[in-house]
Amino acid sequence: MERIKRTERIVAIMRVFTSNPCRLITLGEFVDMFGCAKSTLSEDIAHIKSSLLKMGMGTLETVNGTNGGLRFLPFNSDESDRLIMESVCEELKKNERILPGGYLYTTDMFSNPKITQAMGEIFAKHFYARKPDVVVTVESMGVPIASMTAKALGIPMVTARHNIKASEGSTVTINYVSASSNRMQSMSLSRRLLHRGERALIIDDFMKGGGTAKGIADLLSEFDAEIVGTGVIIATEEPKKKLVDDFYQLMTLYNVDTDNKIVDIKSRI
Amino acid sequence: MERIKRTERIVAIMRVFTSNPCRLITLGEFVDMFGCAKSTLSEDIAHIKSSLLKMGMGTLETVNGTNGGLRFLPFNSDESDRLIMESVCEELKKNERILPGGYLYTTDMFSNPKITQAMGEIFAKHFYARKPDVVVTVESMGVPIASMTAKALGIPMVTARHNIKASEGSTVTINYVSASSNRMQSMSLSRRLLHRGERALIIDDFMKGGGTAKGIADLLSEFDAEIVGTGVIIATEEPKKKLVDDFYQLMTLYNVDTDNKIVDIKSRI
Repeated sequence: MERIKRTERIVAIMRVFTSNPCRLITLGEFVDMFGCAKSTLSEDIAHIKSSLLKMGMGTLETVNGTNGGLRFLPFNSDESDRLIMESVCEELKKNERILPGGYLYTTDMFSNPKITQAMGEIFAKHFYARKPDVVVTVESMGVPIASMTAKALGIPMVTARHNIKASEGSTVTINYVSASSNRMQSMSLSRRLLHRGERALIIDDFMKGGGTAKGIADLLSEFDAEIVGTGVIIATEEPKKKLVDDFYQLMTLYNVDTDNKIVDIKSRI
Repeated sequence: MERIKRTERIVAIMRVFTSNPCRLITLGEFVDMFGCAKSTLSEDIAHIKSSLLKMGMGTLETVNGTNGGLRFLPFNSDESDRLIMESVCEELKKNERILPGGYLYTTDMFSNPKITQAMGEIFAKHFYARKPDVVVTVESMGVPIASMTAKALGIPMVTARHNIKASEGSTVTINYVSASSNRMQSMSLSRRLLHRGERALIIDDFMKGGGTAKGIADLLSEFDAEIVGTGVIIATEEPKKKLVDDFYQLMTLYNVDTDNKIVDIKSRI
């Protein structure tokens, strides 16, 4: 094999780490890739670690032991996260986003991969220490953000559905009342998607009364899953009492004033 | 500013490129980040370019001119893509994936961010030269793969919905017949999501008769969007005549033999 230079190895290692966030990668995998000594690689890793730290662009976690290795955590600095969420808030405050009925138009933003990736990495940073096995959401606006959160955490995503399809196999269904729509709905989850005792992180785009999050929690209890946290992009200030107690929100929506065309929304990051 | 070493700059540059696939980044952005000379950065870029090429881990495209810069294309080697799709096929062939009615259970795979990211990058590689402005899909199984394709292309994703919500604002709705379900359905797209003349790439998980893809195309024509391509993860071999002529498939499903428990599926990559 042609000799590979340090700069070249670092490029390749960074490509592998950034494509596999939060996944444990052994030094051996890189040894196989480059055909160089472990000691050489350890130096490369030290360079990468210090650079990421200095630039606030993520963390390289070392796991010791026989099953050890390295994990790239794609978590930006708090300052950088704050700037992103402030720019999202500024965009959401634009009065042309106010829809009839006092709804706020967010669909374009919450399905834009650039924005959902950034927000997914913020959720991942917050919930990483709780060691979730799987991200759970409900169709359909929650899917892009849940997908990016799962990607940042290196774990699978599962989606509860309102309409069951034959291609889902056997499913478990529960009924719930969504405060946003104020009507009874049902959600179903394929039996094969979750294993007993898995640690689930609930991610959704919007929370008003918490009925949907409570619905997902009820559904998860049918699978004996353990809920390690709930994250939503936007929670409304009212009602203050939600159906779920413990949740993490990126933004709080205080009011949409349709008469004066003012959106009162604030970042919580 | 503390002097930053080449290895450190390369780590940071790779982090920026891999977080912003297909986005044009000027050398000036890196000059601002590191406070070093353009000539120094040009050398860094040359190192990155040759390393990516050597390892088959993507391409760094140089765009000349006053509005020029660099674009990281996260496209792996054809050989690497082939290996991924073969392993996906192997997994899908497992007989426990056969559901009553001859359906194939794919939900877990097609919502796993690790797999959808890899497949999204394959779609991105195939369609990049057609310069799409936006990825269009229909809820809900298409969303994770469309989202990852859009991310790899650095463009937004929009989702047509079966049920309109007030939070979508005004929408355009069309009716179509899906061959899989063999019934009339409707799909709607928020008026605000697409601009006249945008170049749209249609991405979905599954194609049998092509009714859904045709439905999306009809919906897009209401927006005067130009369709630059259609990509599906799986297309069935039968019917050979689909309602859309030109589409790109990652796998062909020849047959699901429920009696003998055999899934006949092949990668097309």
